[in-house]
Amino acid sequence: MSAAYLDCNATSPIADAVFEAMLPFLRDRYGNATSRHGFGTAALQAVDLARGQVARAVGVQPVQVIFTSGGTEANNLFVQGAASCLKPGQVAVSAVEHPCVAKPAQDLARKGWQFRRLAVDGEGRVDPADLELALGTPTGIVSVMLANNETGVLQNVRGVAETARAQGAVVHTDAVQALGKVPVDFTALGVQAMSLSAHKLYGPKGAGALVVDKRLQIKPLLLGGGHERGLRSGTLNVPAIVGFGAACELALARLDALPPRLAALRDRLEGGLREVGATVFGAGAERLPNTSYFAIAGIEGETLVVELDRAGYAVASGAACSSTNPEPSATLLAMGVEPELARGAVRVSLGEPNTAADVDGLLAALQGAVRRLRGLAAVSA
Amino acid sequence: MSAAYLDCNATSPIADAVFEAMLPFLRDRYGNATSRHGFGTAALQAVDLARGQVARAVGVQPVQVIFTSGGTEANNLFVQGAASCLKPGQVAVSAVEHPCVAKPAQDLARKGWQFRRLAVDGEGRVDPADLELALGTPTGIVSVMLANNETGVLQNVRGVAETARAQGAVVHTDAVQALGKVPVDFTALGVQAMSLSAHKLYGPKGAGALVVDKRLQIKPLLLGGGHERGLRSGTLNVPAIVGFGAACELALARLDALPPRLAALRDRLEGGLREVGATVFGAGAERLPNTSYFAIAGIEGETLVVELDRAGYAVASGAACSSTNPEPSATLLAMGVEPELARGAVRVSLGEPNTAADVDGLLAALQGAVRRLRGLAAVSA
Repeated sequence: MSAAYLDCNATSPIADAVFEAMLPFLRDRYGNATSRHGFGTAALQAVDLARGQVARAVGVQPVQVIFTSGGTEANNLFVQGAASCLKPGQVAVSAVEHPCVAKPAQDLARKGWQFRRLAVDGEGRVDPADLELALGTPTGIVSVMLANNETGVLQNVRGVAETARAQGAVVHTDAVQALGKVPVDFTALGVQAMSLSAHKLYGPKGAGALVVDKRLQIKPLLLGGGHERGLRSGTLNVPAIVGFGAACELALARLDALPPRLAALRDRLEGGLREVGATVFGAGAERLPNTSYFAIAGIEGETLVVELDRAGYAVASGAACSSTNPEPSATLLAMGVEPELARGAVRVSLGEPNTAADVDGLLAALQGAVRRLRGLAAVSA
Repeated sequence: MSAAYLDCNATSPIADAVFEAMLPFLRDRYGNATSRHGFGTAALQAVDLARGQVARAVGVQPVQVIFTSGGTEANNLFVQGAASCLKPGQVAVSAVEHPCVAKPAQDLARKGWQFRRLAVDGEGRVDPADLELALGTPTGIVSVMLANNETGVLQNVRGVAETARAQGAVVHTDAVQALGKVPVDFTALGVQAMSLSAHKLYGPKGAGALVVDKRLQIKPLLLGGGHERGLRSGTLNVPAIVGFGAACELALARLDALPPRLAALRDRLEGGLREVGATVFGAGAERLPNTSYFAIAGIEGETLVVELDRAGYAVASGAACSSTNPEPSATLLAMGVEPELARGAVRVSLGEPNTAADVDGLLAALQGAVRRLRGLAAVSA
């Protein structure tokens, strides 16, 4: 596989430093972190170190970190777990949330909750007027993501939290795509819970966290041995947690240098995209530095992704988790994008290994693909 | 760490062949299995291969395997997920189930279910008369483990399933401790669901599975992107799943040779244990070949574990997951063991790396520890 990988919002390669940190725990240090002997103690110390690294990355105390198997579990733990401790009321989430927030929130209807989608503007930002309107109904839970997985558009989570908490709602943010790309400060955002995932920031698959305000009441999803102070049972995935911690430390260390470098590559890419007549979604909003989500009128995103893959460039036609879903992106439809244009959506999400040569090569491949596909369209028309 | 590890029921070392299989997916083959490009396809093919390996290990079709983050999630997915699709009724589980079955089953009381513990005999086997009695009440769910994590005692799951299904119950078995140690055949057992875990059979932490009858209705615990045919959302942990598959293949390949070798070591150990006057729990029942659970009257299990750890032998004083719980083992109490003797419980669970020298060394260390502790007791008396 000598192809260039430009799909880091789907999953990122593991950084060398992260892999090196994990390796001993995959081999000789295989103890169960709850065992009382030396093997267990070594594992527990490694988990404690990682808990501190994750906590520092978002500015909380280690005790606020509940390790999970990933971002999906963290989001479900918050939505289902917080709802179980509240009287049924309204649950409001942005219209551009990831399905692992939106679906458990919708599912609360079975338990007597009212599901409310918060409208977004043309750039994908939650409309403050609609938030105010929604909060006119007693609202138990509000969840608004920090950065969107498709567009990379950043939300004003601090403002949402201030408004919603003043009305008594519990506020959560899915920061899975934000961590490592922009500064993330739990306290400054004013939320009571936040979801994180290791494999989006050069860490391994299989580790994530729900970060919580210590006063937040939450019922565990997974019951059993009582790990994670009873909030998430199950043998701790020590190597993945160690990797998660190392990835957080690395992310903090390079937060000054990496994002501006990726933003420059992204701008280089978008310069070329505009030359081929692409529409870049969310370009008028503050966005993650690494993400570019665009469409070229008349060309299917799926087709373009296949063509680019053949040319050696790995990009996405939508969120990886729903790549098997042929419907146009719900995020784009919520932003008011016409379904026909939305079907053309292609996401490029850059990462640390990417270079200007990758971007230039991708643009050249894209131009070639567009020419061919337009030629085919002309022939078949 | 040059200590001998004899705590394989808590977690096992990763086999070399398993680690080698995982390695490429921790490094260069880092794609998300739902991505459409070459990186994604490579990951998906590896997951498909692993699904087949896991399926073969228990004699089912690949489509029956739902990957989870581990055994705890698999057990919770069954108990909570099956209950959500049934009218509330009775849920009956053996009195010696792991907490990750017993606790979610007890928690169903919040949803109108009646929780019923099935009594066990002095060896820890479910009492058939009590099962009949329990089934006199309409019963929606029955869960009985294949092998107990503490004693290693095997249950007559086939008999339980036959009886309980005749009364219309959905039957599940937690086979986490059994797989790789005794033959496990889903169809022959007659169950509708079975939980598995990779890290108990020389695979990695972070992967498990719920194996299901295709007709079983189950509601997912984790909602989101719709992975695993909608039954378990969340990015697939590709390296761990690959390792799980490799571990299953390895387990099948050495199922003829490894269990008898470990049984011989276990018998060698128990010969020595009886010489120091130990009581071996469940010794009158069919048991896993690798597990010995015993107590020496008047000596705390916790203390013995610490002493043995100092001497270089890693063993457990109970299930690792509840090692922070100072109460005597619920399993032993259910078997009618006196609380004072139960407080002395120590578990040795052998694994592939163990040798006769490990066993002889452990016995020598144990004899020394017992002499010292009895001397201290005599002095302080």
